Amino acid sequence: MDRIRKLQNMMKDRGIDYVIIGPTSNMFYLTNFSEEQMERPLFFVVSEGHSYFLAPKLYEEQLSKYNFEIISYADGEDPYSKMDLNTNSIIAIDDQLWSVFTINLIRKFNPSNLIPASTLLKELRMRKDKEEINIMEEGLKIAENSFLQFLNNIKEGSSECKLADRLEEIFKENGADGVSFKTILTSGPNTSMPHLRCTDRKVRRGDVIIVDFGIKYRGYCTDTTRVVSLGNPSDEVKKIHEIVLNAQESAEKAKNGMKGKEIDSIARGIIAKAGYSQFFIHRTGHGIGIDVHEDPYISQDSEQIIEQNMTFTIEPGIYLPGKFGIRIEDMVVMGEKEARPLNKLEKEIYVI
Amino acid sequence: MDRIRKLQNMMKDRGIDYVIIGPTSNMFYLTNFSEEQMERPLFFVVSEGHSYFLAPKLYEEQLSKYNFEIISYADGEDPYSKMDLNTNSIIAIDDQLWSVFTINLIRKFNPSNLIPASTLLKELRMRKDKEEINIMEEGLKIAENSFLQFLNNIKEGSSECKLADRLEEIFKENGADGVSFKTILTSGPNTSMPHLRCTDRKVRRGDVIIVDFGIKYRGYCTDTTRVVSLGNPSDEVKKIHEIVLNAQESAEKAKNGMKGKEIDSIARGIIAKAGYSQFFIHRTGHGIGIDVHEDPYISQDSEQIIEQNMTFTIEPGIYLPGKFGIRIEDMVVMGEKEARPLNKLEKEIYVI
Repeated sequence: MDRIRKLQNMMKDRGIDYVIIGPTSNMFYLTNFSEEQMERPLFFVVSEGHSYFLAPKLYEEQLSKYNFEIISYADGEDPYSKMDLNTNSIIAIDDQLWSVFTINLIRKFNPSNLIPASTLLKELRMRKDKEEINIMEEGLKIAENSFLQFLNNIKEGSSECKLADRLEEIFKENGADGVSFKTILTSGPNTSMPHLRCTDRKVRRGDVIIVDFGIKYRGYCTDTTRVVSLGNPSDEVKKIHEIVLNAQESAEKAKNGMKGKEIDSIARGIIAKAGYSQFFIHRTGHGIGIDVHEDPYISQDSEQIIEQNMTFTIEPGIYLPGKFGIRIEDMVVMGEKEARPLNKLEKEIYVI
Repeated sequence: MDRIRKLQNMMKDRGIDYVIIGPTSNMFYLTNFSEEQMERPLFFVVSEGHSYFLAPKLYEEQLSKYNFEIISYADGEDPYSKMDLNTNSIIAIDDQLWSVFTINLIRKFNPSNLIPASTLLKELRMRKDKEEINIMEEGLKIAENSFLQFLNNIKEGSSECKLADRLEEIFKENGADGVSFKTILTSGPNTSMPHLRCTDRKVRRGDVIIVDFGIKYRGYCTDTTRVVSLGNPSDEVKKIHEIVLNAQESAEKAKNGMKGKEIDSIARGIIAKAGYSQFFIHRTGHGIGIDVHEDPYISQDSEQIIEQNMTFTIEPGIYLPGKFGIRIEDMVVMGEKEARPLNKLEKEIYVI
């Protein structure tokens, strides 16, 4: 309730009439209720003096324990006509709400302006409280122990996807509620594609293996990347790993009050100095919390000032197309003076 | 490519200038590429003579094998300025695209009209080809065999969520690529909440257990609901089950050319006649394919004519708050004359 009051205060300050939240991380943040998006509108609507769920009738009983007003509609009824929005208003729309709902809201209420709700909500969500940080640290313990346990499963001839599945099973066995994203486990030349998930490729002796993994635990996400080598890594792999590690550890020491782009430039500068700037093809990191990617972003264009209790990743990488890629990723929290890693897992190449 | 040409023809007929697709089921349908949504725009853009991916640079190598033009942007660049859209155009937006992208597109290109892309794409996607139906039948085999195998795992004292996890593990072991939605496994009085997923409640002798389960297989979804009883069901459970079964099997014999609402009214009529109309709190079914819920909908307000090769669910239910709920669900495909179930699994109460 405190979070909703804070949101209402921000709305008042900025002249925003309504905030429309879908069944996303924002709904969980504001109401503690969590659901996937579907074709039936399920909104949490906030205005100055009012907040309520607009929900399909079949959610009525389930929502009743959340202690918010519920306005429900039956299948076949028009949900939008049950909403009390004035036309020509300023509406903040949940960034992840499906566009079909926004199009319908535009048609029905003809707003004078639409803005992404993240402009309000990110300011609340970026700064984590103690409990949120604790939950993420607990989640990381499960994720890291699972990774270590998983290493014994990596055998020549196993396919990337089979290995990724096995790691996800171990997460579950160790108490994870699920994954925060589909595990990335790539090998050999596939590692130069940073967002490829996995393929049928069988891992071979001499392969670099990149494991980028995260779990969901009590509503919060983890995100970590480590490098594995099946057999001794080549000199080139060792050299690139050292550059990336240096970039990662330097950026991880970011100071309170730096801008996102300043932290990015620490990592980017080290990689550029080593002569690989064109092979670092993504930003240095992203905020993490209920969403695996959220504000603040640690990117070349981020003017966001990184303050105490913001949690984010530091994950530089170098990708040599057709050869291999190396990325190392920790989660960090900004402290009073400087950031500290939430991960404990060591960052050397795991040689198997 | 054929699908894109069909889409372009429809766009021409209806005067739609651009279709903007996000990394959703529509992208998979049109390009075969599949990815989750994230904060970086990843679009497939279609206009009369042109179609291309607008993608973050880190997807370039991965997308190159899909044989479409790729316009990429680096982190820190403005993606929208790389798009060749004219202002004041009519843009069809992927229904599931995150609203933040639509808000940005509105700001950048000031369209004269926005429409949900489903108005075009549903007409293509509703009518399945032979291969799509085969894939769903193969998926159902895996899902149904997994369910039967799972029944041995239901023991007094197991929690709903533990049981749901176990079923999802069996899906994986049997070759599923994942689940099409988080498994619904509820017991006792929880079964009266049709969209509750699971809780820590431990199943007890005398419980009704509802299992609503589906897998993803080669890009397509399955969706099935069956009723389990731990010990002999009460007379009331047996009576309600019989009414729901009668409604389900009657609606399952829908004729080619009926409207969605006519099929809905077959099931609804039977339940109403038995005196339970106020306890059937949702529609009779939904289309299914790449998305677990898609057109055509089998609901009281659906004017959609159900034609040959459309696939959808028939899933009436009766929910008695505080007591129990019963739902039975099959997937069906409309044939030349009438629908036929794609499921093979028997629909009696599974007594354990």
